[in-house]
Amino acid sequence: MTSSQFKTVGLIGKYADKGVSDTLLTLHGFLCKEQLRVITDQETASMLANTNIETGTRKEIGELCDLAIVVGGDGTLLNAARSLADYDVPLAGVNLGHLGFLTDISPNDMCESIAEILKGNFQTEERYLLECRVDRSGEYVHVGDALNEVVVYKWNVARMIELETYIDEKFVHRLRADGLIVATPTGSTAYALSAGGPIIHPALDAMVMVPICPHSMNNRPLVIGSDSVTEVVICASTQNHARVTCDGQLNFELLAGDRVEITRKPQPIRLLHLPHHNHFELLRAKLHWAETPTRP
Amino acid sequence: MTSSQFKTVGLIGKYADKGVSDTLLTLHGFLCKEQLRVITDQETASMLANTNIETGTRKEIGELCDLAIVVGGDGTLLNAARSLADYDVPLAGVNLGHLGFLTDISPNDMCESIAEILKGNFQTEERYLLECRVDRSGEYVHVGDALNEVVVYKWNVARMIELETYIDEKFVHRLRADGLIVATPTGSTAYALSAGGPIIHPALDAMVMVPICPHSMNNRPLVIGSDSVTEVVICASTQNHARVTCDGQLNFELLAGDRVEITRKPQPIRLLHLPHHNHFELLRAKLHWAETPTRP
Amino acid sequence: MTSSQFKTVGLIGKYADKGVSDTLLTLHGFLCKEQLRVITDQETASMLANTNIETGTRKEIGELCDLAIVVGGDGTLLNAARSLADYDVPLAGVNLGHLGFLTDISPNDMCESIAEILKGNFQTEERYLLECRVDRSGEYVHVGDALNEVVVYKWNVARMIELETYIDEKFVHRLRADGLIVATPTGSTAYALSAGGPIIHPALDAMVMVPICPHSMNNRPLVIGSDSVTEVVICASTQNHARVTCDGQLNFELLAGDRVEITRKPQPIRLLHLPHHNHFELLRAKLHWAETPTRP
Amino acid sequence: MTSSQFKTVGLIGKYADKGVSDTLLTLHGFLCKEQLRVITDQETASMLANTNIETGTRKEIGELCDLAIVVGGDGTLLNAARSLADYDVPLAGVNLGHLGFLTDISPNDMCESIAEILKGNFQTEERYLLECRVDRSGEYVHVGDALNEVVVYKWNVARMIELETYIDEKFVHRLRADGLIVATPTGSTAYALSAGGPIIHPALDAMVMVPICPHSMNNRPLVIGSDSVTEVVICASTQNHARVTCDGQLNFELLAGDRVEITRKPQPIRLLHLPHHNHFELLRAKLHWAETPTRP
Repeated sequence: MTSSQFKTVGLIGKYADKGVSDTLLTLHGFLCKEQLRVITDQETASMLANTNIETGTRKEIGELCDLAIVVGGDGTLLNAARSLADYDVPLAGVNLGHLGFLTDISPNDMCESIAEILKGNFQTEERYLLECRVDRSGEYVHVGDALNEVVVYKWNVARMIELETYIDEKFVHRLRADGLIVATPTGSTAYALSAGGPIIHPALDAMVMVPICPHSMNNRPLVIGSDSVTEVVICASTQNHARVTCDGQLNFELLAGDRVEITRKPQPIRLLHLPHHNHFELLRAKLHWAETPTRP
Repeated sequence: MTSSQFKTVGLIGKYADKGVSDTLLTLHGFLCKEQLRVITDQETASMLANTNIETGTRKEIGELCDLAIVVGGDGTLLNAARSLADYDVPLAGVNLGHLGFLTDISPNDMCESIAEILKGNFQTEERYLLECRVDRSGEYVHVGDALNEVVVYKWNVARMIELETYIDEKFVHRLRADGLIVATPTGSTAYALSAGGPIIHPALDAMVMVPICPHSMNNRPLVIGSDSVTEVVICASTQNHARVTCDGQLNFELLAGDRVEITRKPQPIRLLHLPHHNHFELLRAKLHWAETPTRP
Repeated sequence: MTSSQFKTVGLIGKYADKGVSDTLLTLHGFLCKEQLRVITDQETASMLANTNIETGTRKEIGELCDLAIVVGGDGTLLNAARSLADYDVPLAGVNLGHLGFLTDISPNDMCESIAEILKGNFQTEERYLLECRVDRSGEYVHVGDALNEVVVYKWNVARMIELETYIDEKFVHRLRADGLIVATPTGSTAYALSAGGPIIHPALDAMVMVPICPHSMNNRPLVIGSDSVTEVVICASTQNHARVTCDGQLNFELLAGDRVEITRKPQPIRLLHLPHHNHFELLRAKLHWAETPTRP
Repeated sequence: MTSSQFKTVGLIGKYADKGVSDTLLTLHGFLCKEQLRVITDQETASMLANTNIETGTRKEIGELCDLAIVVGGDGTLLNAARSLADYDVPLAGVNLGHLGFLTDISPNDMCESIAEILKGNFQTEERYLLECRVDRSGEYVHVGDALNEVVVYKWNVARMIELETYIDEKFVHRLRADGLIVATPTGSTAYALSAGGPIIHPALDAMVMVPICPHSMNNRPLVIGSDSVTEVVICASTQNHARVTCDGQLNFELLAGDRVEITRKPQPIRLLHLPHHNHFELLRAKLHWAETPTRP
């Protein structure tokens, strides 16, 4: 048993994926043996056959836990991060077989890895989230958080939509496109990359606006400071054919004249990594970059 | 006559371009009438028929002047910025007919514009430069400054070269490409944009690594903090078929094993803009982005 | 009056655009004065105040006319081309102020231009259309024609869809993307260009498959012969979150397992151009390519 | 022993690569046992310790052989194809460990594979080459052949060069770029792909012009018929800072005013593939496209 800075651990598994239950039970058993209080997400617990598991809402996990362990893919961690963003609980991610950008602990030796973290052998990395608010005639009619990206996207229509963008109250451009992505560094390796955006190092206080299939080839990705206020206004021609989504999960129908305001969420989340964690190694593995440095 | 914070003004014109002489003479006359001491770059003065002009080296301009006015295109301002980077003299750029990203004062009303600046009606913007050092077997054999970009490029060969990159001493990737650009925000709208890089706002403390025609389509532009140390190592297969250039002007032959070290230059240059200067307006004008915001 | 090979002319205006009525009335008057029988599209005629106009369905225009004049933008001509594709009637396009890729006759001198065409002074250019059929469990449940492109697109969902592609019954790839465009040379300068596709010369018997924001950066546009049969199969994970559209106008909901079969329509349409028409000049004008050849 | 349509076989190995000698000796032994006359390329033979080998020039191989077997990578086959392009000898490519786009016979079972080909069990695929001629003041000062691509490239200079392009004597555009690639379908998966060009199916009679890092983002790849005559004229500003290369191997210095004329070589080369050869399978393997079709 390890004497640890962590006393109460939240356990969150991939939604509706029975394949994760063995991993979760192993992890649950390990954490209990370490004499930690373990609170399992209600939906996660419902997938497990063990009735002796303490369960809690995400709110309870946020309030009671000093560590949350997420088992699944990057989507599961994105979901957990959004739900715990208002609490000061760090996250560690165990992937389900495929290395993730956010879930970088291998299931093969996860108990050893978690033991290291419990002992205090870890790196802490802060990742900021975006807050998205929809202003309709002066009133906020929708709010949402995103760790990867906020996307304003055409919806129920084949043709392009028309958007206007502002940064810090200054007009940037009027855009005809399939949509517009505003991504964090975390999101720069997700959808924004598919749309032609650059990779942004997570330590950089930046966000990137990436147009999706813009009509004009001169509309290129634009990297700005993360403390900027970005606004996207839905033009009259677009009518009600646009939606805004956060991390591709939640979506909200927009009307002409709606103003989507995107800002940095004040409090970041914290990701815990193993001591040997190296962001470039992760990029090489995920993006199949050539290895083999020649330098000793 | 205006009582001004500026007493001594340097005047630098586009190299070997006689078309600039009328503009320079008008500007010189205006500045003298304002009872300022005007020191004209020696090469610039040699293009003018007026023998009553005080001339000086770039070093003298740097040491004596409290303002340098550059007349030409962005290339002329890049050149002036590199030569004055070690002195604390701000620059204002008058373009020769075509609006530049850096030379944003129109020649049509340049005397009125300069008068505004002399009165203190201006915005100051800092732009950082890159320092590039070539380490060969532990010794620096070349140094250079760049306001736009440092490029390691294939030379005298049709096939790709092979490079290894490091950021803050961590291996990033091994790259087969025509070359690699490391650009400042200032340079992000120059060569880096042609090679597929993003636009970076000048207020962001970032630099971007952009591979040129990489063999692997997964090698994408990478945006990092401007305080990072970037290193590019020439692989053995490349032999002596690579050069490094700063702002496309100076170039130096590299050998296999050479390490090109790129860092932020500690002191930035200062650009003076008119009060109504707006970076996004400049981007719209230069990149032909759609205008017409609908918001009042 | 001109003795012309054309005796009966169809007149088709932009749908629901009152701004086009003056142009249409001028053109109608001119054609009548030339002693041609003029049959105006019913919807077009409903926008005109003149009750002495002979009207007809698209079918009647197709069967009776030996020339169709389209007034509007490229969208209007795409619509007319699809509706007349089964008849052997050539089309000439008058644009409404903005030069189009397909509507290349200027409204400023349209009567002189049409007079030239009536005299037989024109170039004929063939453009092929795509036929799209949706096979659901062995039965065709939807058919459509496209002059620009057939698009299989995510619908009512924020996340990517999954598709499988086949060319001439050979498996090509499994694709995670926002969608897939199959475009004609005519469509290569439309949506496919925004998605990163190449420009294809209209005289080339080719089609191009362009993935939209593909998850893998290795999924690049693929140019094949226009006589190939392209198939797109909706993967199980996509469920009913995909639609197929032809020229961005018609759309049809797809289910998992649906097979979208795309082939070249046997009969092409014919576009009539003025004698001095030059496709590269059109590309330069529309894409803002640099002019000024130095060669005499 | 097989009775074969092939009586005399040329054997060409990768230049100056001793690692290929075992493979060559095995293959040589096998072909002799099949009672074929084998003529080995002189440079290839010089790497082999066996003195009983009949050697010949490329010209002799072209004139005497009815099959040429190339052992190496795609570069070796490109070289062989250019040297044998004027003779009617088909080529088969054995790769050296890494699957190539052109060298698709695995060394592991090469004798069985070659035996199949000798028996007549093969597919024949035609690939066309490009002819490049440099016209200086009305005289051809350089000619060359390319199976992949002709490239006009900046040389010994860091800044962009300026080019003018013509297709079938019609002006296309004036281009500021690092260079311009004119590629065959064969070359579309080589350098042209790195520069942003599309993949072109080898059965399509097309070529593609791909600008390299163009100053204007509107200068996009352009696919035209392979029977077109493409011309690239070196603008005055470029002076002698451009070269033309064929398949990245041969290069020739260009002067301002030089006109590089690129046409399809009348006679194609023939590649012999095994009966199960599938171009899309090759693309999937080389470009890491997702496999696993679900269709039976």
